[in-house]
Amino acid sequence: MSELTLTSLLLLFPLIFIVLTSAPPTIASEAATKGYSKSIPRFLGKFANPNRGKSFQYETRYFEQRLDHFSIADLPRFRQRYLISTRHWTGPDRMGPIFLYCGNEGDIEWFAANTGFVWDIAPRFGAMVLFPEHRYYGESMPYGSRDKAYANAASLSYLTAEQALADFAVLVTSLKRNLSAEGCPVVLFGGSYGGMLATWMRLKYPHIAIGALASSAPILQFEDIVPPETFYDIVSSSFKRESISCFDTIKKSWDVIISEGQKNDGLRQLTKAFRLCRDLKKTEDLSEWLDSAYSFLAMVNYPYPSDFLMPLPGHPIKEVCRKMDSCPEGTSVLERIFEGVSVYYNYTGKVECFQLDDDPHGMDGWNWQACTEMVMPMASSRESSMFPTYDYNYSSFQEGCWKDFSVKPRPTWITTEFGGHDFETTLKVFGSNIIFSNGLLDPWSGGSVLQNISETVVALVTEEGAHHIDLRSSTAEDPDWLVEQRAFEVKLIKGWIEDYHQKRNSVFSI
Amino acid sequence: MSELTLTSLLLLFPLIFIVLTSAPPTIASEAATKGYSKSIPRFLGKFANPNRGKSFQYETRYFEQRLDHFSIADLPRFRQRYLISTRHWTGPDRMGPIFLYCGNEGDIEWFAANTGFVWDIAPRFGAMVLFPEHRYYGESMPYGSRDKAYANAASLSYLTAEQALADFAVLVTSLKRNLSAEGCPVVLFGGSYGGMLATWMRLKYPHIAIGALASSAPILQFEDIVPPETFYDIVSSSFKRESISCFDTIKKSWDVIISEGQKNDGLRQLTKAFRLCRDLKKTEDLSEWLDSAYSFLAMVNYPYPSDFLMPLPGHPIKEVCRKMDSCPEGTSVLERIFEGVSVYYNYTGKVECFQLDDDPHGMDGWNWQACTEMVMPMASSRESSMFPTYDYNYSSFQEGCWKDFSVKPRPTWITTEFGGHDFETTLKVFGSNIIFSNGLLDPWSGGSVLQNISETVVALVTEEGAHHIDLRSSTAEDPDWLVEQRAFEVKLIKGWIEDYHQKRNSVFSI
Repeated sequence: MSELTLTSLLLLFPLIFIVLTSAPPTIASEAATKGYSKSIPRFLGKFANPNRGKSFQYETRYFEQRLDHFSIADLPRFRQRYLISTRHWTGPDRMGPIFLYCGNEGDIEWFAANTGFVWDIAPRFGAMVLFPEHRYYGESMPYGSRDKAYANAASLSYLTAEQALADFAVLVTSLKRNLSAEGCPVVLFGGSYGGMLATWMRLKYPHIAIGALASSAPILQFEDIVPPETFYDIVSSSFKRESISCFDTIKKSWDVIISEGQKNDGLRQLTKAFRLCRDLKKTEDLSEWLDSAYSFLAMVNYPYPSDFLMPLPGHPIKEVCRKMDSCPEGTSVLERIFEGVSVYYNYTGKVECFQLDDDPHGMDGWNWQACTEMVMPMASSRESSMFPTYDYNYSSFQEGCWKDFSVKPRPTWITTEFGGHDFETTLKVFGSNIIFSNGLLDPWSGGSVLQNISETVVALVTEEGAHHIDLRSSTAEDPDWLVEQRAFEVKLIKGWIEDYHQKRNSVFSI
Repeated sequence: MSELTLTSLLLLFPLIFIVLTSAPPTIASEAATKGYSKSIPRFLGKFANPNRGKSFQYETRYFEQRLDHFSIADLPRFRQRYLISTRHWTGPDRMGPIFLYCGNEGDIEWFAANTGFVWDIAPRFGAMVLFPEHRYYGESMPYGSRDKAYANAASLSYLTAEQALADFAVLVTSLKRNLSAEGCPVVLFGGSYGGMLATWMRLKYPHIAIGALASSAPILQFEDIVPPETFYDIVSSSFKRESISCFDTIKKSWDVIISEGQKNDGLRQLTKAFRLCRDLKKTEDLSEWLDSAYSFLAMVNYPYPSDFLMPLPGHPIKEVCRKMDSCPEGTSVLERIFEGVSVYYNYTGKVECFQLDDDPHGMDGWNWQACTEMVMPMASSRESSMFPTYDYNYSSFQEGCWKDFSVKPRPTWITTEFGGHDFETTLKVFGSNIIFSNGLLDPWSGGSVLQNISETVVALVTEEGAHHIDLRSSTAEDPDWLVEQRAFEVKLIKGWIEDYHQKRNSVFSI
C-alpha cells in the first residue's frame, strides 16, 4: 500500500541552492520572494504506475454525481468510478459491514492494488469492499474528459476535499438504499491524503461511517500547527540515523552541484556524471531530482524489498548510505551522491540514462489541490536538515500558484472546515472510533496524530514503520511489530462493529 | 423569541378541500398529483416584523464572505451582516466565551430582538454576543441587492444550509484570530431552523463550537424519519385538549367553506362573513389563511400574553376555543370560526378588514430552501387531524417547485449531509454537548429529539412549552417550569465551558 503515496514532493526551490553557498537564511527568503521558488508538497509521484501492486477481484461501476453538492447550481453531472466486491459480504440480513477506502489523488485501481490490508481482512468480517475514485482522478472526470476537466481554474474549481467526501457520502448512501442495506455499518480506510479524507469523513459524516483507520494522514500539516521544518527534518534524521557521513555528504552536495554548474562546461559535466538522458539546463533540476529521491526513500523506508516506481531493497536508506559510505577514499562528493541515488533510481541496474522531472509544477490534480486548499507549509532548517536552508515563504508560494493556475490559495480554509488547531481538546470530548496509525520513519508522521486522544480516538505509532505500511498486504517478511499492529487494528475495528450492533439493538428494543 | 418562527406554513392544498367533501384519501392523493396542491412548511411568517421584540445594545458590522465555500470558483463575494456586543465580554486573557446565535431565515435584528435569553445570560458568563445574519436574508444579500440575489434559480443557488454554516465558521474564526481570542470557547444558540443550524454546526464544526442549545429544532422532520402527519396531528391535539367541540367545529368547517363557495354568490358571502378587504377569488385562499392561523397558534401557545405578528393573549388556543364554544346556540360553523380566528388575527379589535396571503408560494428565501434542501414531508391524517385529509405527495410537491423556481428538490440530501435516520445510534457514540429543548405543545416538537441520547446529548422536554419559549427573555409571568428549564440550560452551558477549560489545560500541561 505504500506505493499509494510516493512523493516527488520536494521540489525544493531553485534559487535557494545558490543562496546557500554564501548567504544567511534571510537572504534565502529574499530569493524565495523573487518568485523563483515554489513548494507544493506531494504524496504521490507522477510516475505512479497503476500496473504495480496485487490484483484483486472486483467489479467496476459508475455512479452519477453532482459537481457541486453544496449549491443548487445546475451544473453538468459526472460519472464517478468505483470498484466493488460483494464476494465475501454477508449481506443486509446479517448486517455485513462495508469497507470503504477513501480514494485519493490517483487512479483508484492503483489504490485498490496497493491496499492489500483491506482485501486481506474483508473475508474475516464478511465485508463488502468499496473503492470509490476521487473526482478529477483516474476515470472520474467532470466535463467528460481529463482535458476538459483540467482546462482552467474554472473547470478545476470543484476539485476539493469537501466535494470528494460528499461524493463518497452520496454514493454509499445510495448504494445501501438500493441494497436495503441501511443497517450495514461502514468502516473507512485511507492512507496519506486518503487517510486525511477518512478522518474527515468520520468527523463530518458520523451517521454514514462508524469508524476510520487513517494511516499516515498528516491532518495537522497546516498553517502553524506543526513547525514547517518537520517533514525535511524527519527525512534528514532517517539518513542521519543510518550514517552521519551519509547525512554530511548529502548536506554538502547542494553547494557542490551549484559550483560545478557555474564552471565552464559545468552543466555538461554534471549531465555526464549523473548519466542524464538530456542536457541539464540548470542545476536546480538536478537538485530537485535528488531531493525527490531522498524524500521518497524516507517514505518507503520499509524493512523488506518493495516495488513502487521502481524496485527497492529492504531498508533502502541503509542501502543508499552503505553505497555512499563504501566508496574508496578520494571519491568525490558527487560520485558518492550518484552511487547512493542509483539505489533509488536504478536498483535493477537496467537504466541506461536518467530522465529528470522537467515539469514538477505541471497541470496535475495534486498541484491544484496544494495551490488551493492543501496549503502545507514546508521549510528546511539550518541545523537539523540535510537539505538547503529554506524559510517558508507564503508570498512566493502564492505567486507560483497564480502563475501556474491563476488561482489564489486558501491557506486557512482546511483548519476552518476540518479543524487542526487544538485538535486534542476538541476530540477529547467529541468524536470516536478513529485510528491514526503512523510509522516514525515516515516524514509525514510529524504532521499526524501521535498520541492517544481518548479511549476511542487512538494513535498507533511504530518506530520502524514508514508511509502507511500497515495498509499493505501481509507478507512472509513482515516484522513482528507489523503483524501485531495489523492484529490490533483488526481488533479495534471489530470492537467498533460490535459496539454498533449493541447500540443499535438497544435503541430498537426501547 | 417565539416571534422568531411564526408560520404561514400550512398552505394546505387547494383542491383537497373539495375532495374532502366526498372522497376517500386515495382521491385526495389524485387531486394532489394534479399539481393543484403544494406544501412548503414554514417556520416564519411573511408578516414577521423586525420592529417587534426587545431592543438590546450591539454594534452592526459586515464581513466579506465567499459565495461558494466548497468550490474554488471565482464568484463575487458578498457582505454578511452581523451584530456584536462585547459589553460584558471578559476578553481573550480570561477566555471569555462567545455566544453565537445561528441566524435563520429572516432579518437578524429581529432574531436579536426576540432572543432575550442569550442577552439575559451573557453578563453572567462574561460572554461576547454575536448574531450573524443568514445569507440571502435581511441585508446579507449576494450580488449586491435582494432583487439580484432572488433573480432566478442560478442567483439563488448558494442559498443552502451548508453555505450558511460555513459563513458562521469563517466569520467567527476570523473574528477570534483578529482579537487573539483563539482560546475563547464558542457556544451556539438557535431556535427553529436556527436550532437546526446550531445542531448541525456543533456536529460539523466541533473545533469551532463547544456546544449548542438547539431549541425547537425539527432536525428529524425529513424523509420518513417521523410520520408526515406529525405536525398537523400536534396542532390538532393542541385544540382537542382545550375543547373537543372546538376541534370538531374546525374539522367540519373546511367542507362548509367549500360548499358555501360553490353557491351562487357564495364567494361574495364568504368575503363578507370573514370581513375580507378584497373579494375572495377561491375558497382555498380562505382555507389557507385559517390553516396558517391554527398552526401559528399552536406554535405560540404560550402561557402568557405575547406580541408577534399581532398581540395575543396567554394560552391563545384556550381563548380561541372559548370564543368558538361560547357562541349562542344556533350560531353557524362559519360564524364560530370567524369568532375564533379573530383572536389570532384581531385580538386588539382594531382590524377593520383582513388581508389574505395572496401569494404564499412567492419568491421568498424559505420557499426556495423548502424547494431545494429543506424538503419536509407534510400530511394530514383522516382520524386525528382537524385539517382536511391529505397524503404527502412528492410528485406534486416537486411540480410546484419546478413551477415556482425551475428547481428540482433534493429530498434525500439533508439526511445524507447531516444525518437523521438512526440518529440515536450515531450520537450515542459520537458527539457531545447538545441540548435539544422542546415544548410538547409546539407542532415542530414531533420532528425533534425528545429523549436523552447520551450523557451530554440531552433532551429537555416541557409539557406546557411551545415554540422555543426558552429562548425568550425572562418575564415576571414565567411559569416555574420555564424558570427551571432556563436555569438547567445555564447549568449545562456552564458545565461545557468548565469542561473545555479543564480539557484544554490538561492538554497544555502535558
